[in-house]
Amino acid sequence: MNNRIIKNRIKTIRRLLNKKKINSLIVTKPANVTYTTAFLGADSWAVITPRAVYLLTDSRYTEQAKAECSNCRIIERIAALPEATGKLLKKLKSVRTVAIEKSTSLTDFEMVKKNIKGHLKSTANIIESVRSIKDNSEIAAIKKAAQIAAQALGKIRRYIKPGITENELAGVLDFQIRKAEAFNSFETIVAFGPNASRPHHQPSSRKLKKNDTILIDFGVRYKGYCCDLTRCFAVGRVTHLYKKVYNAVKEAQAAALKMVKAGVPIKKVDAATRKAIAGHNLPVYGHPTGHGLGLEIHEEPVLNAESKAKLQAGEIITIEPGVYIPGKLGVRIEDDILVTKTGYKILTHNCPH
Amino acid sequence: MNNRIIKNRIKTIRRLLNKKKINSLIVTKPANVTYTTAFLGADSWAVITPRAVYLLTDSRYTEQAKAECSNCRIIERIAALPEATGKLLKKLKSVRTVAIEKSTSLTDFEMVKKNIKGHLKSTANIIESVRSIKDNSEIAAIKKAAQIAAQALGKIRRYIKPGITENELAGVLDFQIRKAEAFNSFETIVAFGPNASRPHHQPSSRKLKKNDTILIDFGVRYKGYCCDLTRCFAVGRVTHLYKKVYNAVKEAQAAALKMVKAGVPIKKVDAATRKAIAGHNLPVYGHPTGHGLGLEIHEEPVLNAESKAKLQAGEIITIEPGVYIPGKLGVRIEDDILVTKTGYKILTHNCPH
Repeated sequence: MNNRIIKNRIKTIRRLLNKKKINSLIVTKPANVTYTTAFLGADSWAVITPRAVYLLTDSRYTEQAKAECSNCRIIERIAALPEATGKLLKKLKSVRTVAIEKSTSLTDFEMVKKNIKGHLKSTANIIESVRSIKDNSEIAAIKKAAQIAAQALGKIRRYIKPGITENELAGVLDFQIRKAEAFNSFETIVAFGPNASRPHHQPSSRKLKKNDTILIDFGVRYKGYCCDLTRCFAVGRVTHLYKKVYNAVKEAQAAALKMVKAGVPIKKVDAATRKAIAGHNLPVYGHPTGHGLGLEIHEEPVLNAESKAKLQAGEIITIEPGVYIPGKLGVRIEDDILVTKTGYKILTHNCPH
Repeated sequence: MNNRIIKNRIKTIRRLLNKKKINSLIVTKPANVTYTTAFLGADSWAVITPRAVYLLTDSRYTEQAKAECSNCRIIERIAALPEATGKLLKKLKSVRTVAIEKSTSLTDFEMVKKNIKGHLKSTANIIESVRSIKDNSEIAAIKKAAQIAAQALGKIRRYIKPGITENELAGVLDFQIRKAEAFNSFETIVAFGPNASRPHHQPSSRKLKKNDTILIDFGVRYKGYCCDLTRCFAVGRVTHLYKKVYNAVKEAQAAALKMVKAGVPIKKVDAATRKAIAGHNLPVYGHPTGHGLGLEIHEEPVLNAESKAKLQAGEIITIEPGVYIPGKLGVRIEDDILVTKTGYKILTHNCPH
C-alpha cells in the first residue's frame, strides 16, 4: 500500500475530526482499521491521534502487521482491546477529546469508558464518508477483483451440465477464485430453478436438470477489496415466462444505468428500475436496488426509495434489480458501477452474461 | 430443528430475564437469533416477550424463515431493524421493561431507543450463558461437522505433493467441504514451512517444496454449528528442530487434556500446556490455549491465564497449543473437546494426524 495514499486519508479524517471537535478517534470497525492502517488482519483496533496512528494487535498478527503497515505504530497487546486502548491513551500527551466509532458494541464502549480518563464521545460515518469516494488504488483493486470474477465464471462454464448440484457448482467457482490468489467476498449463492426466488438462497444438493435455470451471485475479494455480481443462465429450453422476466430485469438495469451520474438523487435511480419492472406487470423486488462496495461488501450509499443522498463521482455501487416468483423462478442481474462526473463505468463488463 | 428444544431454550432464557427484571429482550447477535428461532439467515433480529418470540426479517429471507422457524412469529420488515423493532414493541401489550443485547452497536442502540416508549436497558451474556452448555442436538451437529472435516482432510492427502501452492491446497480442501453439503466455519489457513509461524497466515502462492512442512487450520460449519481444528504434516525429510517442536506441542496438548473435567479451573488447563512447552525451552505461544465453539467459531469460555471460570459439563472447547519461531517454523495442534462430568470426549478424533 502506497504510504502517501494512507497519509492523505488520515489528513482528510483529521480534518473531519477537527470539525467535530474530536482530537483522537478509536477506530474499531475492521474495514476502517484497514483503511487507516493498511492492516488486513482481524481483531485489531486503530487509534488516530493528532500526532500518529497506532495499530493495536496481538501476537497472532504482529508479523503480518509489520509487513503491511508502514505508516503506523504497531502495538502488540496482551490485554483485551478496550483495556489496551485505555492504557495507550493514558500515556499519550497529545490526546484530549476522545471519540469511538458508533459501530462499536455497547460492551466495548462501556469497557473503553472505564479505561480512559474523562468523557468518551461517540461518532459515526467519519471514515465511512471518506471511504465512499474511492481513490485510484481502490478502483484498481475492485477492477482486478471483477476481472478475477469474470475469469472464474468463464472457467466453470464447462461444469454447467445436468446432474451437477448447486453446492458443487459453488465449490468449483470458489476453487477458481482461490487459484487466482483471491478470496470470496461473501458466501457464493448458486440457485437452480425455483430456488432462485429466494434472493439469499444457500446452495443445496439440488441437481441441475436438462431444462433448467441458474442464478449465481458471488464476489471476489482482492487486496481487501470486494466485487459483487449476479448472473443468470439457462440450460436447455426456457419457458416463455423466464424469457419475459429476464428481459424485463435487463431493461430495468439499463433504465437505472441511464440515470447514473454524479449529482443525481439516488432515489431516482431506484425508482427507474422499479418502474421498468412494474411496467411489465411483474412483482417489484423487496430489496434495495444496490449498495456501495469497497473494503466491505455493503457500504454507503444504499440505493433505495428512502435515500436522501445524491450520487457522487468516485462512488462504486452495485445495480441489481430482480424479479422473484416463489415456486417458479428468480432472476437478478447485478453489476458494479463506478460513478463519474459525466456518467459511469461498468467494472464488471468482462463478466459473461 | 426440534420444536421442543427451542421451547426449552426460551424457557431458560425467560427465567434468566426474570431474574434481571427484564420482561422483553431484543436479540441482535446473529448466533443468538439462530439459537432462539432456528433461523439460519442474516440481517434479522428476534424479540422475546413473555408471550411469544418474533423474528424480524426482510423479503430476501421470508421464504427461508418460513421453512426454518416453526415456533416463532415471522415479521417481514421494510423499515430498518431498529425502527421495525420499535413499531412491533409499541403494538404488544405484554411488553414492559425492554432490554437489548450489549453486543449491539451504539448506532442501533440509539436508534432503538428513539423508536420505543420508555427506558431501554442493555444486558450481556444471557443467551451466551445458556449457549455455552450444549444440548444433544448441538453436540451431534458439531460431531457431524468434525466428521466432514476429517473426511475432507483425508481426501486432499493425494494433492499434498511438491509444487502445489498454499492457495490451491486451501481451495481443494474447501471444495471437499462444499461437496459434503457443508461450509467453512472460517477462512481456511494453509501455511507451508516458516509461513506457519504466523498463527493467522493467509494462504499464498508459496509452493510446497520437496522437504517441507504444512500447517492446516480449518473448520466446517454444519447446520450452523462449527468445528475448528489444526493439523501439521511434513513431506520429505524433517529437521531435528521440527520434530522436537512437534512432540513438545503434542505433549502440551496431552497435558491439558489430562486436566479436562467439569469443575476444573480453566486457568489450570491453560497453565498445563504452557508449562509443558516452557519445559522444553521453547517459546510459549501468545494466544489463548483454546475457546468455546458452537454457533460461533469463538464462544465462551476463553481458555487463558486470566480466566476465573471453571469448566462445565456440556461445554465444547478447543485445545490448541502452538510453538512459533519466526523465519523457521510454526506448529499448532488443535482438537475439539466435549467437557463431561468425569473427563472429556474428543470430537475430532477421526481427523488424521
